[in-house]
Amino acid sequence: MASPDTVDFVSGTTRMYGIVGHPIAQVRSPEMFTAEFHRRGHNALMVPVHILPDEFDTVVPNLMRMQNLDGLIFTIPYKSRACSLAGEKGRNATITGAINALARTADGTWRGEVFDGLGCVEGFRRRGIGFAGKNVMLIAAGGAGTAIGVAIAFEGPASMQLYDILPERANKLAERIRKIDPAIEVTIAAPSVEGKDILLNASPIGMLDDPNLPIEAESLPQGLIVFDAIVKPEMTPLLTLAERCGCRTLFGTEMMAGQISKMVDYFGLPEKAAS
Amino acid sequence: MASPDTVDFVSGTTRMYGIVGHPIAQVRSPEMFTAEFHRRGHNALMVPVHILPDEFDTVVPNLMRMQNLDGLIFTIPYKSRACSLAGEKGRNATITGAINALARTADGTWRGEVFDGLGCVEGFRRRGIGFAGKNVMLIAAGGAGTAIGVAIAFEGPASMQLYDILPERANKLAERIRKIDPAIEVTIAAPSVEGKDILLNASPIGMLDDPNLPIEAESLPQGLIVFDAIVKPEMTPLLTLAERCGCRTLFGTEMMAGQISKMVDYFGLPEKAAS
Repeated sequence: MASPDTVDFVSGTTRMYGIVGHPIAQVRSPEMFTAEFHRRGHNALMVPVHILPDEFDTVVPNLMRMQNLDGLIFTIPYKSRACSLAGEKGRNATITGAINALARTADGTWRGEVFDGLGCVEGFRRRGIGFAGKNVMLIAAGGAGTAIGVAIAFEGPASMQLYDILPERANKLAERIRKIDPAIEVTIAAPSVEGKDILLNASPIGMLDDPNLPIEAESLPQGLIVFDAIVKPEMTPLLTLAERCGCRTLFGTEMMAGQISKMVDYFGLPEKAAS
Repeated sequence: MASPDTVDFVSGTTRMYGIVGHPIAQVRSPEMFTAEFHRRGHNALMVPVHILPDEFDTVVPNLMRMQNLDGLIFTIPYKSRACSLAGEKGRNATITGAINALARTADGTWRGEVFDGLGCVEGFRRRGIGFAGKNVMLIAAGGAGTAIGVAIAFEGPASMQLYDILPERANKLAERIRKIDPAIEVTIAAPSVEGKDILLNASPIGMLDDPNLPIEAESLPQGLIVFDAIVKPEMTPLLTLAERCGCRTLFGTEMMAGQISKMVDYFGLPEKAAS
């Protein structure tokens, strides 16, 4: 007459979160967000939600009717399409036209924001580094680069030099930055480190087994702070060069950790006092 | 540069299952089914899905479009309404007009069956007890009683005596049993144990702190097998009396364990060889 076995990480009272994408098998958010929910003391789960592109617009609004679902995050290819699901949008989402987090609010409406760039800023903040007054070189203005550029622009840097292999993307990001803060000196030019305080790579150069650098350089000035958004590998060719030159380095995983933290804050799940 | 922490019970490749109900906080299926998925070696999760009655018909068909969702189970108040979601229905579902499990098949269609009664039969089978040729007394013909009565009828008992405080419910179940197997001698009469092999209680009498018996009796014959569908408490007044009289007893938790096992089979998740 033994009762059936149970597990302790899901129950009828678990609050649900989902990551929506296509494909979905490769995402790491379920295990990372759930770990953060638990670390903060919440009975909550982030689960994978695989939705086909043709069905996104009909299925996702219905998913949002699930009463114990409190948030969704969006990955490829849905960051732009998800924007229309948000009633109120954060300032980064408004500027970029994309969201990657949708949170149910106390009054039952949904608000959206894009956190890639905010995660980068948070990663720097945790190292005690702010962007105010700094001279920044940002390589690439795709989805991640744009989000990073926009989030940094809200921090009040002195100047931002932008580069993208597609000039129209760099131009578009420059426009957005000028709209956020006309006081920022924005230029578009090939990657360089002269007069820069912070170098950020948001391009895929150096990812996986790619041995290339996203900047033509034999060495980097020792005072430069170097960040690479790439997560695999953690130690990219750019960061290897930076460490060899004595630069301070920040890793893609720090942006990821910063992003998770900011998104879980956004979901309204604060740290609970340890019991 | 530490990577964010992770958990090991959810990932991008986790196959999803949900229990749909209103309310949802009280359900125990998430922890029990997930434990059974894991025990069998599958990366799968059962999560709570709280859907409001007004939204059931629009939301649930959309949930079924989630490509990594392979099954749903239904609890109060949705067992009848869920029936229309199944393309192909099992024989218990066809007779009772209710389902509590919906499984995605290999060709992408969904099939449904009701497992309450099958779980009871499975619980008996695990004890080495069959219903073929037996004389059965079944108390109550509500949702659970009907499912139990129908599942037993498919096993070929010699006779079934039915009782419900609402005579029309007992009549309805008797009709269904006669349709399944005209050879079964079906009678409707107050609970009695004369000439019976198996006594089953599917009424709520004896639940929680209720000290009452579902049958008027001071003692029970020693050869009688006595089952109570009640889960809380496990040891009901009826089962206490039965044990005092030396009867063999079967518990509600055995029906529950049998049901979980049969439903996980139905979801196409067989035992995997231990690695």
